[in-house]
Amino acid sequence: MESNYKNIIKNAYKSASLIKDEGKIATYIPELANVNPEMFGVHITKTDGTNYGEGNNLEKFSIQSIVKVLSLSLAYKILGEQLWERVDVEPSGAKFDSLLLLETNKGIPRNPFINAGAIVICDVLISNLGDAKVEFLAYVRELSGLPTLTYSDKIADSEKATGYRNVALCNFIKSFGNIKNEPSEVLDFYFDMCSLEMSCKELSYTFTFLANKGKTLEGKKILKKSKCKRINALMLTCGFYDESGEFAFKVGLPGKSGVGGGIVALYPNNFAIAVWSPKLNPHGNSYKGMHLLEEVTTHSELSIF
Amino acid sequence: MESNYKNIIKNAYKSASLIKDEGKIATYIPELANVNPEMFGVHITKTDGTNYGEGNNLEKFSIQSIVKVLSLSLAYKILGEQLWERVDVEPSGAKFDSLLLLETNKGIPRNPFINAGAIVICDVLISNLGDAKVEFLAYVRELSGLPTLTYSDKIADSEKATGYRNVALCNFIKSFGNIKNEPSEVLDFYFDMCSLEMSCKELSYTFTFLANKGKTLEGKKILKKSKCKRINALMLTCGFYDESGEFAFKVGLPGKSGVGGGIVALYPNNFAIAVWSPKLNPHGNSYKGMHLLEEVTTHSELSIF
Amino acid sequence: MESNYKNIIKNAYKSASLIKDEGKIATYIPELANVNPEMFGVHITKTDGTNYGEGNNLEKFSIQSIVKVLSLSLAYKILGEQLWERVDVEPSGAKFDSLLLLETNKGIPRNPFINAGAIVICDVLISNLGDAKVEFLAYVRELSGLPTLTYSDKIADSEKATGYRNVALCNFIKSFGNIKNEPSEVLDFYFDMCSLEMSCKELSYTFTFLANKGKTLEGKKILKKSKCKRINALMLTCGFYDESGEFAFKVGLPGKSGVGGGIVALYPNNFAIAVWSPKLNPHGNSYKGMHLLEEVTTHSELSIF
Amino acid sequence: MESNYKNIIKNAYKSASLIKDEGKIATYIPELANVNPEMFGVHITKTDGTNYGEGNNLEKFSIQSIVKVLSLSLAYKILGEQLWERVDVEPSGAKFDSLLLLETNKGIPRNPFINAGAIVICDVLISNLGDAKVEFLAYVRELSGLPTLTYSDKIADSEKATGYRNVALCNFIKSFGNIKNEPSEVLDFYFDMCSLEMSCKELSYTFTFLANKGKTLEGKKILKKSKCKRINALMLTCGFYDESGEFAFKVGLPGKSGVGGGIVALYPNNFAIAVWSPKLNPHGNSYKGMHLLEEVTTHSELSIF
Repeated sequence: MESNYKNIIKNAYKSASLIKDEGKIATYIPELANVNPEMFGVHITKTDGTNYGEGNNLEKFSIQSIVKVLSLSLAYKILGEQLWERVDVEPSGAKFDSLLLLETNKGIPRNPFINAGAIVICDVLISNLGDAKVEFLAYVRELSGLPTLTYSDKIADSEKATGYRNVALCNFIKSFGNIKNEPSEVLDFYFDMCSLEMSCKELSYTFTFLANKGKTLEGKKILKKSKCKRINALMLTCGFYDESGEFAFKVGLPGKSGVGGGIVALYPNNFAIAVWSPKLNPHGNSYKGMHLLEEVTTHSELSIF
Repeated sequence: MESNYKNIIKNAYKSASLIKDEGKIATYIPELANVNPEMFGVHITKTDGTNYGEGNNLEKFSIQSIVKVLSLSLAYKILGEQLWERVDVEPSGAKFDSLLLLETNKGIPRNPFINAGAIVICDVLISNLGDAKVEFLAYVRELSGLPTLTYSDKIADSEKATGYRNVALCNFIKSFGNIKNEPSEVLDFYFDMCSLEMSCKELSYTFTFLANKGKTLEGKKILKKSKCKRINALMLTCGFYDESGEFAFKVGLPGKSGVGGGIVALYPNNFAIAVWSPKLNPHGNSYKGMHLLEEVTTHSELSIF
Repeated sequence: MESNYKNIIKNAYKSASLIKDEGKIATYIPELANVNPEMFGVHITKTDGTNYGEGNNLEKFSIQSIVKVLSLSLAYKILGEQLWERVDVEPSGAKFDSLLLLETNKGIPRNPFINAGAIVICDVLISNLGDAKVEFLAYVRELSGLPTLTYSDKIADSEKATGYRNVALCNFIKSFGNIKNEPSEVLDFYFDMCSLEMSCKELSYTFTFLANKGKTLEGKKILKKSKCKRINALMLTCGFYDESGEFAFKVGLPGKSGVGGGIVALYPNNFAIAVWSPKLNPHGNSYKGMHLLEEVTTHSELSIF
Repeated sequence: MESNYKNIIKNAYKSASLIKDEGKIATYIPELANVNPEMFGVHITKTDGTNYGEGNNLEKFSIQSIVKVLSLSLAYKILGEQLWERVDVEPSGAKFDSLLLLETNKGIPRNPFINAGAIVICDVLISNLGDAKVEFLAYVRELSGLPTLTYSDKIADSEKATGYRNVALCNFIKSFGNIKNEPSEVLDFYFDMCSLEMSCKELSYTFTFLANKGKTLEGKKILKKSKCKRINALMLTCGFYDESGEFAFKVGLPGKSGVGGGIVALYPNNFAIAVWSPKLNPHGNSYKGMHLLEEVTTHSELSIF
């Protein structure tokens, strides 16, 4: 994807704009249901710093589960390989908030990207940081270059008031002993974390360190190269819940989706790309976003395979 | 992995030779239990034709499930995307011969590499070829450049006499209507297919077409580039049963293991590598083989991520 | 249910005749689909020998799974409590031919009335009898007082040709080692056994030994009283697949249903009753039959509770 | 069990006292772990008012889940058959606090005696009573003839502080919409309810209405006879978690166990019996208690079958 990458993005955006959007907006977080379902944007940031976007690429949206890659990267940095005693690295073969495998596996979540795993990561951060909320925010501010980024109370409160499934997950894991702090504290951090808002442009910029051997575009080292590769591998095998295989199969890039309709994907040593369209397919991933990324890799031949 | 690839292989082989092998030889196919458990070989074949091996790399062994990549590639070539109506492309989160997800999914196997999926692929080949056994053998002979390759009756008979789990799987899928031919015929082909024997050298050579955009080293086109990428993606997400995530995480290459202790992996546009050591870890994958490949990619930094 | 039991049966039959039959005839055994769906009969036999019937109570039908109570009683007589090492006594919470719990329980079926358990019972009989088919038939002839009773080849062959799910179950259990004979032999006996045909009158007569402390009406001792009680308990907790709780709840008698539309139930020290109507509810139990029995116990107040 | 019932109880108590108690005291509710593990008592109350006990039959203990029969009987009285839209009547085939089937069944618990079902019953009572805690207590006081009975704060607080699994269950069901009130309120009532303490004598007396066609020994009508029978049927099929089949098989009476080591069982139109011994078998039921009841019914031949 050399000089013509802008054309590829432009064409993929146009093509995906034309398909009939069969997705449905998420309603289980009441505040998310207020989003304009027609929003559609994409932005790519290359590891050389050049970047390009289309549509509503500068509009902020709730990144939701996409943040779990960032919390994982911070926890992994702190604990190293020891982290994997608390959470596994296998695809779950089940929906994002399933409790089935959790029961079989005695409270060890299948991977850090399903809700159960992300909640355990929150618990790890609380145990290992002085003030997890503050320090995690500082970490994301650094990655994103957005010094004023803050949690969205409106989104977080909306989810706190209705997130019974996540309360269930957290208490269930606690009953197996794999949550060390109080469930209410862990969940409070979890909901805050998921409430962060970014635009496609900001999001693609934020994720470039994973496409850049662990360094930000300014050259600051965030993560060791080997850890960075492993997080990318995890995104590929587990980033899209029970549609992870399909995404690897059709798009062929590591990526992570969020219930707000955002998806971020990256091509190692090359670029990070973020797309946003709020309507979701039955697996909980952005309907149009999936199509746009499939277009991009089909025409650019930029799958990692 | 340029000029020094031989050294990387040599060192990884040496290093893996030194670890204590905590694996256990597979005993459920009686004939496999007769193999010398100390065998250990590796061979790499680059897409430029150069190649190198260590240990028992010229010794033939039963490739078992590794053959499922080849049967899939033939079925995919014949049926195209229609194939995915019969089998899904998602990791299973369960052991290789589990019936659990099959029941939930009404007879559609989670992916073509678990036994259930490979059995459906056999059924597809029988329905679409005049004589599936003969024509599939011809296909593998062409890929491997081994004109006298044949099924091993000894291995196949041993498995036919004891493969109750696979008989169960096949009849279970038949009960959902996703097997079109008689179960006994499908299983006969399945067991024959899994009985093929190759050395590490032959196996790495055979798989180069998947690392070479679908062409053999002689330039013969076997599969379209896009199909080739998708098979590689499938190997990455599903090639190691319920240890697929771990392999992607630690090794970072598409690959496929067999219960005979063989593993093949590949780096697109670069090389295919085959390793063999009969003792298996609890997930059914070669204990030493996994370690050797981890060594190779750690030192060569040749993960796709 | 003293002198007026005939009236109770008559009224319950009339009442159940009037309801709209929302059931569907079983089609997975092709030969069963040929049965006249409007057939409806009931017959009661008291432990004092008096008996009474209504409707098509003298018409023979395929008793199917009802026979599993008889094969169990023979196996239990032979092996005693040792039998329970091969099969458990717990309700399954799943459909009659589910493989789910079987996998969790390592090949030990949840109870002797789901297909998996009945297949294990067949295996036990083959191992412990000279000629299981012949001797089991003799046993049923004795219980029923029908010296010419024979297996129905037409029904058995129909099921042998299409019973893939049962082939799967038997081979699956064999793979865990809980089938000792060849699956094909076990299944051959199983399908023959399920092919027996009786009328409601004959069936209610046959089951009186379980309502009569283990003795036939002629006073012949078939089973110890304590074993008899335990089989009755099993019928109550497990006799209706995943509708067993509902039957205990609404009818309150031990019983067993068959996919041919028959149901037998009994009130200890009092009577056995058989009802037949081929259309089944979604749980695989006779739609009208369930209603009739509910009527009988509601009006007679003859539940065991 | 006529005149000699005292001897039967005496002998069964003696016999069960002699067996080696292989059970383990429940530790997951910290306060329960403080109980003297050697306590062992039994008391029988016949429907004619005569009664007899042995051992620590006058010592109060935490009745825990046994109370769920009483809360069910109150909710059933209030809502009638409509109640079964909120909770099913089938055995669960799983442990008492499993979430597996709950996920499959979309938040409808399998039966009112597993924790999930009992929590839904609490929710029903809160919705239908002015002050559920007060009114339920009044109901139990009436049944037991104990006007000063109160919830045990010590037990309830102990469970509130550690009952993460129940918090998970309640929130999980809430996420499916089958809890109408706030989870914290429902759980508060649930934990209080389970904290009630009675002696074997009091407990057997309290349960006589279910053996007495719905009337207390004083003749006060508590429940319709038909509802009473149905609750007894439910106890038989679901009263002992995943050991319900075994209990029906070996004891043959409707009953309900609690994690405090109590068990109550009853023989319709005859008696209610309560036994207490704190050490539990792996299924969560009193080890010695199960043995004692088996002795009682074996020697008295008083199974309902």
